[in-house]
Amino acid sequence: MKKYDKLVKNAVGRMVPAIINGEKHVPFMGVGKYKPTGNKYGPPIASCSDYPDDGNKVIDSLREALIKAGIKDGMTLSTHHHFRNGDLIANQVFDIAADMGVKNLRWFPSASFPCHEHIIPYLEDGTINRIEGSMNGALGKFCSLGKMDGLGVLRSHGGRYQAVQDGEVKIDIAIIAAPTADPFGNANGVNGPAACGLLGFALADSQYADKVIVVTDNLVPFPAIPWQIHGNYVDYVVKVDKVGIPEKIISGTTQITKSPDRLLIAELTAQFCEQTGLIYDGFSYQAGAGGTALSIGNYFGDILRKNNWKARFIRAGSNKYPVEMLEEGLVEYILDGQTFDLEGVRSMRENPNHVWTSPFTSYNYHGKGNFASMVDVVVLGATEVDINFNANVVTHSDGYLLHGIGGWQNTLFGKTTILPVPLFRDRIPVIRDEVTTICAPGEMIDVIVTERGIAINPLRQDLIAKAKETNLPIKTIEQLKQEAEEICGVPDKPKLSDEIVAVIKWVDGTVIDSVYRVIED
Amino acid sequence: MKKYDKLVKNAVGRMVPAIINGEKHVPFMGVGKYKPTGNKYGPPIASCSDYPDDGNKVIDSLREALIKAGIKDGMTLSTHHHFRNGDLIANQVFDIAADMGVKNLRWFPSASFPCHEHIIPYLEDGTINRIEGSMNGALGKFCSLGKMDGLGVLRSHGGRYQAVQDGEVKIDIAIIAAPTADPFGNANGVNGPAACGLLGFALADSQYADKVIVVTDNLVPFPAIPWQIHGNYVDYVVKVDKVGIPEKIISGTTQITKSPDRLLIAELTAQFCEQTGLIYDGFSYQAGAGGTALSIGNYFGDILRKNNWKARFIRAGSNKYPVEMLEEGLVEYILDGQTFDLEGVRSMRENPNHVWTSPFTSYNYHGKGNFASMVDVVVLGATEVDINFNANVVTHSDGYLLHGIGGWQNTLFGKTTILPVPLFRDRIPVIRDEVTTICAPGEMIDVIVTERGIAINPLRQDLIAKAKETNLPIKTIEQLKQEAEEICGVPDKPKLSDEIVAVIKWVDGTVIDSVYRVIED
Repeated sequence: MKKYDKLVKNAVGRMVPAIINGEKHVPFMGVGKYKPTGNKYGPPIASCSDYPDDGNKVIDSLREALIKAGIKDGMTLSTHHHFRNGDLIANQVFDIAADMGVKNLRWFPSASFPCHEHIIPYLEDGTINRIEGSMNGALGKFCSLGKMDGLGVLRSHGGRYQAVQDGEVKIDIAIIAAPTADPFGNANGVNGPAACGLLGFALADSQYADKVIVVTDNLVPFPAIPWQIHGNYVDYVVKVDKVGIPEKIISGTTQITKSPDRLLIAELTAQFCEQTGLIYDGFSYQAGAGGTALSIGNYFGDILRKNNWKARFIRAGSNKYPVEMLEEGLVEYILDGQTFDLEGVRSMRENPNHVWTSPFTSYNYHGKGNFASMVDVVVLGATEVDINFNANVVTHSDGYLLHGIGGWQNTLFGKTTILPVPLFRDRIPVIRDEVTTICAPGEMIDVIVTERGIAINPLRQDLIAKAKETNLPIKTIEQLKQEAEEICGVPDKPKLSDEIVAVIKWVDGTVIDSVYRVIED
Repeated sequence: MKKYDKLVKNAVGRMVPAIINGEKHVPFMGVGKYKPTGNKYGPPIASCSDYPDDGNKVIDSLREALIKAGIKDGMTLSTHHHFRNGDLIANQVFDIAADMGVKNLRWFPSASFPCHEHIIPYLEDGTINRIEGSMNGALGKFCSLGKMDGLGVLRSHGGRYQAVQDGEVKIDIAIIAAPTADPFGNANGVNGPAACGLLGFALADSQYADKVIVVTDNLVPFPAIPWQIHGNYVDYVVKVDKVGIPEKIISGTTQITKSPDRLLIAELTAQFCEQTGLIYDGFSYQAGAGGTALSIGNYFGDILRKNNWKARFIRAGSNKYPVEMLEEGLVEYILDGQTFDLEGVRSMRENPNHVWTSPFTSYNYHGKGNFASMVDVVVLGATEVDINFNANVVTHSDGYLLHGIGGWQNTLFGKTTILPVPLFRDRIPVIRDEVTTICAPGEMIDVIVTERGIAINPLRQDLIAKAKETNLPIKTIEQLKQEAEEICGVPDKPKLSDEIVAVIKWVDGTVIDSVYRVIED
């Protein structure tokens, strides 16, 4: 099987394969342009008569569960990143597969982490054909150097749900690691020693996979409440000693930035939002868990407090900062996609207004709407932005694929998307003539905030007009690029071959860009 | 189209049609014998690009929403009985359809109530071809007299989910009346003037219907939390002045019985459970909202209290009695399918251990298990039982179809099913040679408790052995039948034609019995 075939130029001018790992895919046609046809995937109909009456689906070991689930060559196995870099299960799955001599698997994680470097030998020996999911760190480098047998496919969190729902990716066996589960397979992330908050990334897998295995280290009697994952979708339950390393589950920068430049960017972002009227009584926003984003969230809190306003909701990967705002009454709801610290877990467990979401509710573009488009202000990062506002979040300027898309593409559908980015990192400009990889077309990005000024997308004349009435340092994106180049020089192009190693999907399942093999020095 | 065709004898010896309303159906093959093949139904793939970015799906009127949803001849329209006899929406839907001249609709309610007598003219004029769902009161009589154009199809709550999931019933337009909703279509039953607790009966419809309309009288800003129905499945939202009549929503007998016979039956049932060891620390039970069942629940509470035990969960249609037990700490969870009074609604709103369920979690037989089979003791009613323990819950002994199946068939999968029934009602014996309509084969019924003795199904030798060590009045079912006949005489057979007017589905979608036209005196 060829990794890819039939290159075509898509709607953002990038060459992408129309055949990927032997299957047809649609090149990106423009935002909202591709109209899906046909019906959602329907998994096989089960019958209670084939499941134990007493609801006890516990199997002695993960190995036995995989055998019962019918693991064999060429299957698609999925795992999830609820434990982030503290995941202990995915590696075991492939240890077992390799030991059994199973070959040519597709690993379909919701994200991979540095801890999964462990599976590189299985990519080398043919146990795993390819990863379809984010590849961070060593796995990204492995892929970037063209060493993966199959082509990497990167999807957003919403795109992953869409691909499963639409039958583009048929999961044979989903392995769902859960902090708490009952013998029937009901599972949640709010209780247990490895509590991580929620299990939303596994929702699609539970609903659509042929076989579903829940793995837990905290088996409780039926019912495990809340049932974030429904046992009615689960085939087998496995009890292990330890499902995740708690201290590594909680990650992300959970400290407000102390860098003067980052603080300035955060302050400018908040001022922009305040002075252009983006913040109002009842507004909503999304900000990540990075140091700059946390600082912006704090500024937003100050603005709400000062005006005696309340946000309707924060869309979060939560941690103690939004939780404090919820508990202070500055916000009515947190709609949470993943918790980043123990305060987030506690709040989700205790507070019914701290709501667990899933890529289905939040991000799936092939639904009857999703709530990403209702968020007023979305604050995101990027590795690169170009003068057409196209943005990159997966590759670095040296061409290496080192990040996943996460929910980034999905959240761009918010009403105003702001990228607060430094003008340069390690003396490499962030704003460029052309991004290495297009993860989003420029029309999705409204505002770029840097420590040396703010650029507004010309498509947002409303914001440009409002900003004119302020004394904010508004510049064109070309000006910002030029300032960066005056300081750092014109950046080198990455050294890339013309061999494609991975593709980037847009939220609708179309292919927006290709990632090329890096030529090592 | 013929109403039915190709009669065959099924596994309980009843003649049932293999062709119903022009479509093939499988005759009952025995409990657990029918193995479904194929895949679940997948509804059409939607795209966010066809839905408003601001999430506002509000349409001016129900009429306009039905037109936008493409209402036309021959479609299947679904509604739900969360408001029970206080529903104000289903009748309006068919008023509009009739006014538009739409014909030949299939009404697919989760249940109909006496308030829906209003639609009889639409059954007469061809607006509605048939009802597939419970038919109570006047609608049941209408069907029983052979006046419905199409054949009635009665399904259990779980069977309704199964039929939708499996694509046996394709819903064109689901109309979900909701006590609270937001403009995106997220909806719940715990808030608002018509709060009814939960919206579980509409889950299948939201997931699988082609078009979904949410109707509410309490429109709140996004997000309506909890989102029992996900807006991501919803096409249109309609605001009306009043969605249900609150005082009629709360129904069911919510008073403990005062009848000495019924109290005796309740006491015998509780004694039986206690003395045969069915009740233990951590046990679970289901009891309905009738006067006898409530009394049994109270006895169970006494037994738990006396032993310093705790039930793990109560499966309920809840009201103040199980809520009191939850709040007293006699039970850890209520797993609730529908709330029957305002205390039930309040508890569900406030108490995370009062859990809303759905026919998917509880009852769907074509899932990977459901929790009905995990309930230790299930206490149910019946209109008739026969000497083979076959039971009837839909027709009276005069042949009239006057009740729906509800969750009755589904809950029979509990570990021990007990039918506490009077030996006779209005001098008509309840225990008979043969039930008018078989809703469950005898193997599903374990114990019959009457005011004159207890009969145990010979299949339950374990219970028979345990009962022998007690001084409970254990009799054979033949003895009970004879005692009733000694008092009331041998009952007349109902006067039925050989024309079938409705069929009863088993939980797996197979046809377990036919309901015949009643010959009026």
